Amino acid sequence: MEYTKPLARLIEYFQKLPSIGPKTAQRLALYILKMSENEVENFASSMLDAKRQISYCKTCFNMSCSDPCEICSDMSRNKAIICVVSETKDLMAIEKTNEYHGLYHVLQGLISPIDGIGPDDIRIKELLYRVNQNDIKEIIIALNPSVEGEATSLYLTKLLKPFNIKLSRIAFGLPMGSELEYADEMTLAKALEGRVEI
Amino acid sequence: MEYTKPLARLIEYFQKLPSIGPKTAQRLALYILKMSENEVENFASSMLDAKRQISYCKTCFNMSCSDPCEICSDMSRNKAIICVVSETKDLMAIEKTNEYHGLYHVLQGLISPIDGIGPDDIRIKELLYRVNQNDIKEIIIALNPSVEGEATSLYLTKLLKPFNIKLSRIAFGLPMGSELEYADEMTLAKALEGRVEI
Repeated sequence: MEYTKPLARLIEYFQKLPSIGPKTAQRLALYILKMSENEVENFASSMLDAKRQISYCKTCFNMSCSDPCEICSDMSRNKAIICVVSETKDLMAIEKTNEYHGLYHVLQGLISPIDGIGPDDIRIKELLYRVNQNDIKEIIIALNPSVEGEATSLYLTKLLKPFNIKLSRIAFGLPMGSELEYADEMTLAKALEGRVEI
Repeated sequence: MEYTKPLARLIEYFQKLPSIGPKTAQRLALYILKMSENEVENFASSMLDAKRQISYCKTCFNMSCSDPCEICSDMSRNKAIICVVSETKDLMAIEKTNEYHGLYHVLQGLISPIDGIGPDDIRIKELLYRVNQNDIKEIIIALNPSVEGEATSLYLTKLLKPFNIKLSRIAFGLPMGSELEYADEMTLAKALEGRVEI
């Protein structure tokens, strides 16, 4: 059976989104048809507005409607610390902890030779420029514990060491609330390696 | 941390969709921001087009751009059989089997007293009208094996019995490829009850 054309097209668009398979795409499309026309108009315009109004902060490459972004222009934040993340969503995750009050630098990717992404394809030179131009006291590397994350961290460490500023990486180990016996070996090894004196 | 406004609004809209939680909504919204403006425009317009062009077939209440719908107006289909389903997505699932070549009737819901949905809130009278007006030989009830599905099937059975047409319900039992020992008791009971002579 073929979907009626506009429905087929809508399902196709939903399917392009990450983590949306054909079944979910169909469910979402049918849900759109059940919304009021007014609601659909608002949804569609919210999509266009977000796309048109939001761009990257030219300092930290966070997504924002303003440049510099809300974080870079927030006078209450500690401008001597930069936390390096891969994507805006990682920045958001850290912001939700309410534990960090410095600045960020969003690399917009990770070094991944397999995917043809080298150091020049992500915002590394812009980070070096910031470190050169400003009085930065500490850099926290907060990249995923993946092959690409490790590679990028190593690369950044090499580049940043000569600056003689405090350089750290977020800790890897047992997640809170988890049980030691169920932890995988890699995590446990990292937890042992990163043990902290008490 | 607060999302920049247009992003917050877009995330909110995604979160209204079924099976989309806050994390997925954020991921989808950020993905939209990474699409080209042209792609976002196309996605938004596909949503509006679908909503504006698709309405319900006034005969079977399937979603369609035409009235009667593609299925009702297909001359090659057997117009003496009606398969009663709850939602358009169930119709689509049956169409995908390529096993059924009759007509449909989409109830647009199920009787559910808890949710305040009675027989008059779904397309039951329209079904009776069709049965009255046309030469229908068989009705297949294809509703979910849920409390609401059972209640609606029972109600329909009572109403349709007097017409003296062949009335059936799709079979419930072990799904193909499954293993008996892992089937839940309800399914196994249904499978026994619905046993077929060989």
